[in-house]
Amino acid sequence: MKRNYKKSIKVFAPGTVSNVGCGFDTIGFALNEPGEIVIVSLRNDDKIVIKKITGDNGTIPYNLKKNTASVAVSSFLKKYNGRNIGVDIEIRKKMPTGGGLGSSAASAVAAVYGLNKLLGSPFKKNELLNFAMDGEAIASGGIHADNVAPALLGGITLIRDYNPIDIIKIPAPKNLYCIVLHSNVIVETKKARKLIKSEISLKSARKHFGNMGTLIAGFYESDFEKIGKAIEDEISEPARSKLIPGFYDIKNAALNAGAYGCSISGSGPSIFAFSKTKKDAEVIGKAMGKVAHSHNLKTKTFISTVNNIGPKIIS
Amino acid sequence: MKRNYKKSIKVFAPGTVSNVGCGFDTIGFALNEPGEIVIVSLRNDDKIVIKKITGDNGTIPYNLKKNTASVAVSSFLKKYNGRNIGVDIEIRKKMPTGGGLGSSAASAVAAVYGLNKLLGSPFKKNELLNFAMDGEAIASGGIHADNVAPALLGGITLIRDYNPIDIIKIPAPKNLYCIVLHSNVIVETKKARKLIKSEISLKSARKHFGNMGTLIAGFYESDFEKIGKAIEDEISEPARSKLIPGFYDIKNAALNAGAYGCSISGSGPSIFAFSKTKKDAEVIGKAMGKVAHSHNLKTKTFISTVNNIGPKIIS
Repeated sequence: MKRNYKKSIKVFAPGTVSNVGCGFDTIGFALNEPGEIVIVSLRNDDKIVIKKITGDNGTIPYNLKKNTASVAVSSFLKKYNGRNIGVDIEIRKKMPTGGGLGSSAASAVAAVYGLNKLLGSPFKKNELLNFAMDGEAIASGGIHADNVAPALLGGITLIRDYNPIDIIKIPAPKNLYCIVLHSNVIVETKKARKLIKSEISLKSARKHFGNMGTLIAGFYESDFEKIGKAIEDEISEPARSKLIPGFYDIKNAALNAGAYGCSISGSGPSIFAFSKTKKDAEVIGKAMGKVAHSHNLKTKTFISTVNNIGPKIIS
Repeated sequence: MKRNYKKSIKVFAPGTVSNVGCGFDTIGFALNEPGEIVIVSLRNDDKIVIKKITGDNGTIPYNLKKNTASVAVSSFLKKYNGRNIGVDIEIRKKMPTGGGLGSSAASAVAAVYGLNKLLGSPFKKNELLNFAMDGEAIASGGIHADNVAPALLGGITLIRDYNPIDIIKIPAPKNLYCIVLHSNVIVETKKARKLIKSEISLKSARKHFGNMGTLIAGFYESDFEKIGKAIEDEISEPARSKLIPGFYDIKNAALNAGAYGCSISGSGPSIFAFSKTKKDAEVIGKAMGKVAHSHNLKTKTFISTVNNIGPKIIS
C-alpha cells in the first residue's frame, strides 16, 4: 500500500518541556512519554471535521477555529495545492491539557504530520512547523514554537528567531533523564502568560544570557554540572510558581535528591528535573511526589530521555 | 634563576572583545594583538608606586586609587599573606584607551599576573580574577569580568554568574579570525555604560537568548553561519552606535565583504567582525577601513585568531 493511497493514519507526537529554566520561549525538548495521539483520515468532500476527542474531560473544543489540530490542518490545506481535501480528525488526549507539557502543540503536530504522510509528503518535515505554529497560537494566544518545534523535529531545539522562523538543533546527552511531575493544578496557558512582565531588568537578562550559554555548553559537553546550574529562571518561575502549591518545596526535594536542576515546564504546573541515570530519576521523582502529596496535590510522574525522533506513525 | 627570586617581570596581557553582539556583559574573547605590557618590580619597602606610563597620551592616571593596575595589585596584596611587599609598576600602553578592547582590564591582568609570578605563584591563575576585577571596576564603574576573564584565562569566556563569580570556557574554532577596526573616536566606558537602559523588553531578551544559544552552538560546532547570524544586539549596539560616525555603513561594508557578523567591541568605538580565513579578514578589514575613512575616522586594523593563552611573560 503506497502512503499516498492510505486513507487514515494514527500518529503519536511527543509532549515537550519548554523554557528549561533559563530559555524563556526559546528552548524546548521532546519526551518519549507522555504524548498525544491523533488519527487523521481523508474524507470524500472538502470539509474538516473533528470526529471525536477522548481523554480530555471535555476541555478541548470541537470548534474548528479553537482547536489546535484543526487550525493546524486548515493552515496546511491553505498552502497545499492539491484538489480539495477534506479531513476527519480524532484526538486521543493521553496527557493532561494545561499541564505545561505542550499538549496542544503535540496535537497540532500529530495532525499535520499525519496529513502530510497521507498526501504523500508534499511538505518537508520542517515546513510543517508554520502550520503547527498556527494551531498552537490558538491555545497560547501568540506565535510560539518552543513546544511545537521539539514536538515536530525531536531532540532539543532552540528558536533563534521568529521572523523568519529559525530553529537550531542542539545535541542531547544520551543519558540525560528528565523527570516530569505533573499535578492536578489547573494552569491555563493564556492566563499563565499574562503573569509575565513585558520588560525585565538588564541584570536578570544578563543572568539568563550566562545561563543560556552554560546550558548549551552543558548539552554539547554532556556536562551535567553545567546543565544543572544553568537551570535558573528569573522570568517565568517567580511568577508562575505562585500557581503551584508547594513549588519551592518540591524543587528543593528534587535538588536534595540529586537532580541537576529543577524548574517549571512551560506554563506549568508540570515540574521537570534532570538526572544522569534512570535509577536516580526514580529516586528524584519519588521525592518530588512525596512533597507534592504533602501539599495535597495529585501527581503523575514521567521519566524519559530526550526523544530525538519527534512524531511517530503508529498505524 | 628561580621565578620567586626574580625581582622584575615584563608581562603582555591581551586585548579582548566583549559582548560579541548578543552576550552583553557575559561573553568575551582574547586577541593575539593588540595587548598591553606591564613591568612589575619588587621594591625594598611596602609601597606601591606607578613609576612610568607610556603610550597613553597622558590619559591614564598615576593616582594609585584610579589606576586599574595599581588597584588590582593593591587588591592582590591585601589577600597575600607574605611579608610586606612593595611594587613598582610600569605601564606601556600598546593599544588605545577607551577603545572598547579591554585596555584597562589588560593592564590590571598583566600587573597581577606578573606580581603572582614574582612571588612564586601563591595564587592559582583563576584566583587572580577577583584582583583584576577590582582593578577593572575603577575604569568601568562597576564589577565586570567580560574583559578581565578572557584577558586572564585566554580563549572565549562566558560569565555565568557574578555572585560567586563563575566562568565557563567555550571552545574557539581554530580558524576563527577576528577583524578589529579601531578608530579615533573617544568613548569613555563609564559614559557608554550610561547609555544602556536598565530594563529591556522581554521580546528583545528572548531574541538575545536565542542568539546566545546559537553563538555557543556555533563555537562548539565551528559553524560560521551560526556564529554570524547570532551576532545581533538589541541592547548595546542601538545606543552605542550613535557614538561612532558611520557605524552602520562600516558594519554593512564588513557584511558585504563576507564577514560572519559585525558589531561593537565592548563600549566601542572598536568594531569587530569574524571571518574564516586570514585572507578574508584582510579583505573585510580593508572594506571597513575604506568606509570609516569616508566618515573622516582615523583607523587601525588588527587581525587575530582567538588567543587561547592569556597573559604571557616577555622577560
